[in-house]
Amino acid sequence: MPRTRSAPIGPVRLTPDARTALHPATVAIESGFWHDRRTTNARVSLPQGPDLLESAGNLHNLRLAAAAREAASDTVTEGEFQGAYPFVDTDVYKWLEAASWQLAEGEDTSLAADVARIVALVAAAQQPDGYLNTWFQLVKGGERYQDLRWGHELYCAGHLIQAAVAHHRATGRLELLDVARKFADHIDSVFGLPGSGRPIDGIDGHPEVETALVELYRETGERRYLDLAGYFVDRHGHGLLGGEAYCQDRVPLREATNVEGHAVRQLYLLAAAADLAAETGDAELRAAGERLWHAMTTTKTHLTGGLGAHHDEEDFGDPYELPTERAYCETCAAIASVQWSWRLALLTGEARYSDLIERTLFNGFLAGVSLDGERWLYVNPLQVRDGHTDTGGDQSARRTRWFRCACCPPNVMRLLAGLTHYLASGDEQGLQIHQFVTGTYETDRIRVRAETDYPWHGTIGFTVEQTPADAPWTLSLRIPQWCRDFRVRCGTETYDRSDAPVERGWLRLTRTWEPGDRVHLELGLEPRLTAADPRVDAVRGCVAIERGPLVYCLEQADHPGGGLDDIVLDPSRPPAVKHRPDLLGGVTTVVAAGHRRRIPDRGWWPYPAADDTGPEPDGEPVELTAIPYHVWANREDGSMRVWLPTS
Amino acid sequence: MPRTRSAPIGPVRLTPDARTALHPATVAIESGFWHDRRTTNARVSLPQGPDLLESAGNLHNLRLAAAAREAASDTVTEGEFQGAYPFVDTDVYKWLEAASWQLAEGEDTSLAADVARIVALVAAAQQPDGYLNTWFQLVKGGERYQDLRWGHELYCAGHLIQAAVAHHRATGRLELLDVARKFADHIDSVFGLPGSGRPIDGIDGHPEVETALVELYRETGERRYLDLAGYFVDRHGHGLLGGEAYCQDRVPLREATNVEGHAVRQLYLLAAAADLAAETGDAELRAAGERLWHAMTTTKTHLTGGLGAHHDEEDFGDPYELPTERAYCETCAAIASVQWSWRLALLTGEARYSDLIERTLFNGFLAGVSLDGERWLYVNPLQVRDGHTDTGGDQSARRTRWFRCACCPPNVMRLLAGLTHYLASGDEQGLQIHQFVTGTYETDRIRVRAETDYPWHGTIGFTVEQTPADAPWTLSLRIPQWCRDFRVRCGTETYDRSDAPVERGWLRLTRTWEPGDRVHLELGLEPRLTAADPRVDAVRGCVAIERGPLVYCLEQADHPGGGLDDIVLDPSRPPAVKHRPDLLGGVTTVVAAGHRRRIPDRGWWPYPAADDTGPEPDGEPVELTAIPYHVWANREDGSMRVWLPTS
Repeated sequence: MPRTRSAPIGPVRLTPDARTALHPATVAIESGFWHDRRTTNARVSLPQGPDLLESAGNLHNLRLAAAAREAASDTVTEGEFQGAYPFVDTDVYKWLEAASWQLAEGEDTSLAADVARIVALVAAAQQPDGYLNTWFQLVKGGERYQDLRWGHELYCAGHLIQAAVAHHRATGRLELLDVARKFADHIDSVFGLPGSGRPIDGIDGHPEVETALVELYRETGERRYLDLAGYFVDRHGHGLLGGEAYCQDRVPLREATNVEGHAVRQLYLLAAAADLAAETGDAELRAAGERLWHAMTTTKTHLTGGLGAHHDEEDFGDPYELPTERAYCETCAAIASVQWSWRLALLTGEARYSDLIERTLFNGFLAGVSLDGERWLYVNPLQVRDGHTDTGGDQSARRTRWFRCACCPPNVMRLLAGLTHYLASGDEQGLQIHQFVTGTYETDRIRVRAETDYPWHGTIGFTVEQTPADAPWTLSLRIPQWCRDFRVRCGTETYDRSDAPVERGWLRLTRTWEPGDRVHLELGLEPRLTAADPRVDAVRGCVAIERGPLVYCLEQADHPGGGLDDIVLDPSRPPAVKHRPDLLGGVTTVVAAGHRRRIPDRGWWPYPAADDTGPEPDGEPVELTAIPYHVWANREDGSMRVWLPTS
Repeated sequence: MPRTRSAPIGPVRLTPDARTALHPATVAIESGFWHDRRTTNARVSLPQGPDLLESAGNLHNLRLAAAAREAASDTVTEGEFQGAYPFVDTDVYKWLEAASWQLAEGEDTSLAADVARIVALVAAAQQPDGYLNTWFQLVKGGERYQDLRWGHELYCAGHLIQAAVAHHRATGRLELLDVARKFADHIDSVFGLPGSGRPIDGIDGHPEVETALVELYRETGERRYLDLAGYFVDRHGHGLLGGEAYCQDRVPLREATNVEGHAVRQLYLLAAAADLAAETGDAELRAAGERLWHAMTTTKTHLTGGLGAHHDEEDFGDPYELPTERAYCETCAAIASVQWSWRLALLTGEARYSDLIERTLFNGFLAGVSLDGERWLYVNPLQVRDGHTDTGGDQSARRTRWFRCACCPPNVMRLLAGLTHYLASGDEQGLQIHQFVTGTYETDRIRVRAETDYPWHGTIGFTVEQTPADAPWTLSLRIPQWCRDFRVRCGTETYDRSDAPVERGWLRLTRTWEPGDRVHLELGLEPRLTAADPRVDAVRGCVAIERGPLVYCLEQADHPGGGLDDIVLDPSRPPAVKHRPDLLGGVTTVVAAGHRRRIPDRGWWPYPAADDTGPEPDGEPVELTAIPYHVWANREDGSMRVWLPTS
């Protein structure tokens, strides 16, 4: 079984043979922004999981399948299965993965007992030949792999494998890993190229098994799993499922020029491609990933890092099609984006991937969970209009306790529980700090402690705690893409943007370090107004307020006396910062000047002649209070806007 | 059986008791724009209907149901039903309605034979108790009215009734009317308020039966049908189907403040409410219609008259949510809008309803059918982006020969075949000409002939052909809402916008007319640039090109050497008109000045600081050729834009 150096217990545990520029470092978060959010995750969200999975029927389904296996009968009547989708098992698996990463953080006997109980249930539901899917076992007995386009059997297998890998890494226990291996072996006996002796040449409509199989290879050393992952990745795009972009089947990744189709499916597949490039050195897959990431960020990414423009088919949409109120930005897509970008960051060593991770974590991802950890957003729009009629359901712009398709909540839990594994890396040259938290960053030779109140304040103090003696190494600090000015003090030396040794986003400090050496980084957090590429039609003539890594928004609750859709921001008056410990758990607001326009009544037709619109009457001045986007929808229902007209 | 005065044979045949301001007049179109389109409808689209209904399985289903009835067995195996939806019968009924209106235009033995054959098939498929729905008869035997939310049984009944009314009005034949009455009587025996003795208090998720029942009342004089229509209209909005806006069940029409939910469902229901207000004098329903129409036009109507902002649930969306590339604007919604607006026009006598009809007919509606009458659009977006990836399917931005959900094509056919019935009206004062065509306009006392090359030219000549002697009456000509200047000559008198007797959109010419008297109207057709209410975020900073009633667009085919998404229109240089008999069957184009912007490469992140965007480098000048929106997508696939940035 291969072992990485002092590889941390978390996702993407590269093998020693991996051809990446960087390898993950170990991070412990001790206090501050993400510590608070992770504490809520550990104390509220995760412990509530089993009850929610019980009341939604997911655990019930596993018990039914286990009972059916016990009775040696595959078929139970349809009415007894609970849940609206064939992939409801994955809610359980994602929760198990999240709980496993949480267990790696420290003892939690209650959580451990829940995990043990549910792992036993999963194991009991598995068919003797390794197959496991309660929908197909209970409702579609005997119809395995007949509906690869929509059946989600391999998708479910993928999340089971991910959970098993996490469970094994975190606890050393084999119960779930054995289940996963048995299922993976079964899949490996069924799927393969024509002539391989396997009966089915096919792929799953929803990628996930691919990246899971690479992780299973990493955990077990079984090369077969890596090969199987490679087979699945490369069979996408050849029309095996009819050629739809929705199923990632229109064009092979190696030839694709932009991301397309169902956003989460695309991103999970791309994560797998990056995994394969890492473990096999496949230069073409690596190039495809870099190319598609660039195409995605330049043409299909919302300001929040959110991804997906269409509610319909949860699709990426066309280049520069980035609507505000109908931004889909599924919470799962933000998570998948972080997973993919982190793999590219490790593969290439480039800082820009962690720039996007930071933006996504603080905005498009974090908005997905309420401050109290109990309510969720599946979609994350950039605007809710005055007079919005909410249709309810999973795609509601109002937070929901749980979803019919409950993919997002346990996905949020697993990213928060495993968050420390996306923050720092090491290489032969030293330590790279990708994200700033209060805590310790550690490779096998080096430990650095950081203290910060980021993202509310821009000061980050680093102290070298452990260092090889008399051997120079490089402390690399990511200077965020949004950062317009910064200062750094390292011993007696100081730099700013004009003279700091910054190389493609990395501030490189190479020294022979002593324990106790300190570095002081000050990132300028002046609030700023942000525009968009002129091809982003949806926000023409608008700006957004940002500060540091945070995207801001207006919420109706802070603007009594009217809606938000007639508000105009005055860009000539610089916005100011106001710390508000009383508000929304303590946030830094940005206060800007604006007015509420007086729009003339034009009768029944709202499209006047362009030369007849004339100057508008003066509007009523309004002080605009912007809050971080990630805390929106934590008060009463109302309208919300990220992008604000300027005239 | 009630009879209107000299009521024309067409939709909305008011009873003599109807409380409307106007009643429909008889119009014959002899040549010109709509004549050409109707000729294509009669010679190409309609005759192809039976073959298309055959190959899609609709007629097959009727034959199966007829055979099952013959065999006195309700149940045929599921696999034998063809079609993806429970409402496929309506494609047949809408085609029958269209063909019936066409038969009213003049003899067509081939069409009459097709109609007779299909009417016989429908009659043969009907159950002995009057029920008729091939999906429920063949696939769901015995489950009638168990799924009112999605089953579409009453929706199908509604289209059957509409077809039967048309068939009877046009041919005087009773075969289909008998089927419809029998079904309506069956429905009347099943549905009613608690305590009414009817077993089910319910509504259909898709309105249509309501307006059909009013028409059946008009055709038969049976008050029960009118009452049943009133029952169904008023039971919407009370949560009988769970309270969804999608099913028009969130709020009663009488209390609603804006249109909402599925656009076609909302509009069919509103048409029925207007019908009821007309036939019963219900002032509250009339007020609701006027209120909701105003709310719709001011906040939820696209420039083309298209309706519906969401692909998801085919929903209206929120106020001012009017996207371009994702405008849904279902062709059926445009048709339903014309139907509703015409009922309000008759009810109130107000010209604005016919303003919207004109805009919708020439733009959002007509784009739904290709120039050759053989290919269709289900959705009618206002933009197709450069680099668009088409997902195919019914919602494709590329024309399709037929749809899985083939609601739109036969709906287009029935509106074109019955178009003459939406163009003019009469009242005690005289004749009102709502839409301008070459042909005759006639009430029982008056006949006026018109000649025009509208909408390409703005000149319309009217000649009084028949008039009561020595009795003054008023010729009312609608001065379109878009019209900024016009001149009119009536005998020796001339007027222009400054002094013409225009009253709320109607130019009123009251005279004691003589046969041969002439009126010459000249509507100014200078091309114009149109803006939007500032709350329409999607088109901020853009203008659209219009000329007369036509909305224009750019198509990639006319702009070689690049896409359309980087094009900017120069509003300071007035656009010019260029008649192009060679292009797209002969259209008037509008030529405008613009440039292709040179957008700097900003690296991987397309959201620069607002104060960092600076002046753009000069772009490359481009002559922009705009074509009428209604002829877009008749050449090779490519991008398209209605709204054009101006800076």
